[in-house]
Amino acid sequence: MSEFDLIRRHFTRPATSALLGVGDDAALLRVNPGMVLAVSSDMLVCGTHFFADADPRLLGHKTLAVNLSDLAAMGAVPRWATLAIALPAADDAWLAAFSSGFFELAERCGVELVGGDTTRGPLNLCVTIFGEVALEDALRRSGALLGDDIWVSGRLGDAALALACLEGRIRLSDDEYSACAPALHSPEPRIELGRALRGLASSAIDLSDGLLADLGHILAASGVGAEIDFPALPVSNILRGYLGDAVGLQCALAGGDDYELCFTAPAANRDALLLAGEKLGLTLSRIGRIVAGSGCVVRDAAGNSINTGNGGYDHFR
Amino acid sequence: MSEFDLIRRHFTRPATSALLGVGDDAALLRVNPGMVLAVSSDMLVCGTHFFADADPRLLGHKTLAVNLSDLAAMGAVPRWATLAIALPAADDAWLAAFSSGFFELAERCGVELVGGDTTRGPLNLCVTIFGEVALEDALRRSGALLGDDIWVSGRLGDAALALACLEGRIRLSDDEYSACAPALHSPEPRIELGRALRGLASSAIDLSDGLLADLGHILAASGVGAEIDFPALPVSNILRGYLGDAVGLQCALAGGDDYELCFTAPAANRDALLLAGEKLGLTLSRIGRIVAGSGCVVRDAAGNSINTGNGGYDHFR
Repeated sequence: MSEFDLIRRHFTRPATSALLGVGDDAALLRVNPGMVLAVSSDMLVCGTHFFADADPRLLGHKTLAVNLSDLAAMGAVPRWATLAIALPAADDAWLAAFSSGFFELAERCGVELVGGDTTRGPLNLCVTIFGEVALEDALRRSGALLGDDIWVSGRLGDAALALACLEGRIRLSDDEYSACAPALHSPEPRIELGRALRGLASSAIDLSDGLLADLGHILAASGVGAEIDFPALPVSNILRGYLGDAVGLQCALAGGDDYELCFTAPAANRDALLLAGEKLGLTLSRIGRIVAGSGCVVRDAAGNSINTGNGGYDHFR
Repeated sequence: MSEFDLIRRHFTRPATSALLGVGDDAALLRVNPGMVLAVSSDMLVCGTHFFADADPRLLGHKTLAVNLSDLAAMGAVPRWATLAIALPAADDAWLAAFSSGFFELAERCGVELVGGDTTRGPLNLCVTIFGEVALEDALRRSGALLGDDIWVSGRLGDAALALACLEGRIRLSDDEYSACAPALHSPEPRIELGRALRGLASSAIDLSDGLLADLGHILAASGVGAEIDFPALPVSNILRGYLGDAVGLQCALAGGDDYELCFTAPAANRDALLLAGEKLGLTLSRIGRIVAGSGCVVRDAAGNSINTGNGGYDHFR
């Protein structure tokens, strides 16, 4: 099977919203009047972001999900994506499963695959995602203001806990692992939440590298500091059982791979935010506040600051 | 040095045409009124597209050039790019050289880097390129008509000849290799030619996989066949000396990595095309014609068809 046959078989679907989709030198796309284009790229590398034996269907989902999460954090509506893949060999069954996971999420989120590349090499998946947002509605990292509340969606740390178990850094029972694994393998991008936050949140980011690192980007971009109430962090009952362990604490505060949204908003918007979360069936938790200064202090129930160590996932540390 | 320091040091330059550039969850871009977005992605993999010891400055140039070549083939004006990189280690000197080659070409072509990703993994470079074109001006693969001339820009096969020498498939003198190597290592994307072809060419493609394979995409998309006059192919005097060799013949017809444009146009546009080429200082060669049927016949000076073998580079063949 040739490269072109592979592409045709698994990745060519009729263009509906693109003016010209897969199969020419470039795709042609029309952005809706009054909207600007929101663009982000994420690369997933075998051995760094996933294991070589990862379920290809879940990997197809996750490859798109982590990119959609960036659009969610901008409040943008997803429209299109390109997908470049390096593969060690042309594996038809693997591609069939991968593409089914990718397209299931793409169709659910209104994303059309409009181009990309397929080549031989160590397994590497690179998506560029395109969304639309009105310029004045875009949720930036730089808008957090003194006194704003800090919020997160969903639950933190289950993905990191599942990974810590896979890597042998912590032991979980089979039931515990099974409960945490979906957070790691099939995160749900918070697209609808991102849209609902427009006009309510003052800043937003998606949690890919861990709460402390990603909140740190908001603080740096906004020129402010933060206090986090550790007991307010939304963690599963399973992770709660491991918070006395350094690995468990690390999962909650700096775990990475959460793909929840962290955002700031004035206190006046609390009720509107809780209502928005309710409508989406998604828990929104108020975990702290923006203060003067820089950096982030995490306090326990007694108000004492917790030593949070280095914080965050850095690919080259 | 952390991932974020690396990104900041080498890849963050002030956004001028983007509404929001590197450093948030997504870039924000405004497409000019009346224009549509042209988008393409190309991934370059170490060991497949370049050698591990490739000069990083030239590699930075080529990584962007092969993507710009796709925009050229659409007649689009380059605007923005994202760059995702997987690196085995955070190598500051390598990144400095790579980014200097990348930005030198980017600035010359009016491209702004607006986002991307940096991660650890086997060396892999993935660019998504964004351009603008009026929908009616876009040069597609599907517009070739019976009787159209077939043209190519520049010279064919020097890049493939240099590669064949590096791989030990053919022997060149040092002078011969030095003359061919720039075609392989620093191809010049034919952006200005692509713009000049709007309104003159009926179809276009850029030559990345070799003349026969890429022209084949035009033929398939347009539902036509082609006759190529082998003596009309623009080859260097060096390659001409090797056309009696199977490797040399393969370089001219199916070499890959040319990054010239192949296009079709009605005979009525011959003078206008030659004039356009002259203005750009770029040789345009009329190498054949579109005929009824499918596929491509290559004829020698006596009119006999040449056995061209399989033709084209396929990553999984």
